Amino acid sequence: MTNFFQRLAQEQRQKGSLLCVGLDPDPKRLPAAVRGSAQAIFEFNKAVIDATADVACTFKPQIAYYGAIGAERELELTIDYIKSKDLPVILDAKRSDIGSTAERYAEELFDRYGADAITLNPYMGFDSIEPYLAYEDRGCFLLCRTSNPGGADLQNLRLETGEQVYEHVAQLAATQWNESGNIGLVVGATRPAEIATIRQIVGPMTLLVPGIGAQGGDVQATMAAGQGGGMVLNSSRGVIYAGEGADGDFAEAVRNAAIATRDEINHFIDAA
Amino acid sequence: MTNFFQRLAQEQRQKGSLLCVGLDPDPKRLPAAVRGSAQAIFEFNKAVIDATADVACTFKPQIAYYGAIGAERELELTIDYIKSKDLPVILDAKRSDIGSTAERYAEELFDRYGADAITLNPYMGFDSIEPYLAYEDRGCFLLCRTSNPGGADLQNLRLETGEQVYEHVAQLAATQWNESGNIGLVVGATRPAEIATIRQIVGPMTLLVPGIGAQGGDVQATMAAGQGGGMVLNSSRGVIYAGEGADGDFAEAVRNAAIATRDEINHFIDAA
Repeated sequence: MTNFFQRLAQEQRQKGSLLCVGLDPDPKRLPAAVRGSAQAIFEFNKAVIDATADVACTFKPQIAYYGAIGAERELELTIDYIKSKDLPVILDAKRSDIGSTAERYAEELFDRYGADAITLNPYMGFDSIEPYLAYEDRGCFLLCRTSNPGGADLQNLRLETGEQVYEHVAQLAATQWNESGNIGLVVGATRPAEIATIRQIVGPMTLLVPGIGAQGGDVQATMAAGQGGGMVLNSSRGVIYAGEGADGDFAEAVRNAAIATRDEINHFIDAA
Repeated sequence: MTNFFQRLAQEQRQKGSLLCVGLDPDPKRLPAAVRGSAQAIFEFNKAVIDATADVACTFKPQIAYYGAIGAERELELTIDYIKSKDLPVILDAKRSDIGSTAERYAEELFDRYGADAITLNPYMGFDSIEPYLAYEDRGCFLLCRTSNPGGADLQNLRLETGEQVYEHVAQLAATQWNESGNIGLVVGATRPAEIATIRQIVGPMTLLVPGIGAQGGDVQATMAAGQGGGMVLNSSRGVIYAGEGADGDFAEAVRNAAIATRDEINHFIDAA
């Protein structure tokens, strides 16, 4: 059985790209060419996917953008469309709940939507992530050190052992929690020093790194810090809204932004 | 403006009940009388609500049970039905994400579904809950010390300050995070000692306590520990599946279970 992380690494090698394109379609920011129709969200995503499928190694829809406007059907169509291009899908949901409820979320994310990988929040501990890990061919990225300013509020608290909370999460994720070898971690590109610390703790485990692009994370610093294991760098707004103001040709602007981001990542790899 | 917590307290006083009935409908456990139809989920919930509306002070649908089977419409209908009885609704979603995404979740939970209160996961820090707090008339229950076994994995880690992580969350929730006075906390009934600690930290803040009923939490110990502030005790499976095996008359069994749970809570209050 090829699990998600093996499949992702294979796609990255073949394509020469670590870029994940985040599909967070905000109805207010859709280009005029697709705005307004009931299917606008899916039409927009389809155009973005068509423009970037040979540049990205995976796509990551954020489920809140669909739930907010009742676009569950458009999310299903989007994921099916990504899969029709034979690319893996990370469904960003950051779920957390007790085991019996986690089973229902796993059913929603893995069975209903068919996600190849998901994001999860570890605050409720091992039994809250166990039902997802049981899907051994899928990937589970646990939040470790997030890209937002408030990420420090709990994640950087120092424990009596000297570790910070996020380091303890990394330690658990790399050892006793990772029975099936299908855990990855989410670490923000805005925190390169902490990416380096996490890499030390987890070895080659794959890190999903949001925060480049609109959130201002530094690609070169991120890549330098993350050396020694799997990396997948996500840009959402920086790619999908690159065509704002260039309505007629938004797909070309989206494609160019994706290529530029992929090349910026590869610049580090080529130089290293 | 009456906020959620004031409204809940008023309902609790008028009705003499601290019981929240959790609406977590598992298609495999629905009674034969409503099983099988497309609307089964809503029909079941409607029967439970009709049987318990004068016994419960609020209802708490868990969103995963709806998302797993594409029952978004049934969740909308369920919430509308609870509101038609003039009762507040807690939508259990335990969401967490960066600010821009949190805005979309807030739109989903508060605007689309019309929840009066929600549950949130605090691991991503203040800016990840701020967009929900901006809805000042709604309530936001933050996970503090959860009822599941794995709750200890991160929440009970001891910080260098001597506090445990959940105590620090309680402290933040009761002070600098609670600008609009619309935060409550989730504390499992399986952890009465920690309920008492949290009560010391947060003063009269309302605690949402799941874990009585199927999860085995002790009602008397919970009530004793929680004295001195708002309490709302949730039972889901222990109430809504009370009629299993008594198919013809499941609603009466549900009602009796709700009354017994309410009375068990009130027994403590009357004795105190």
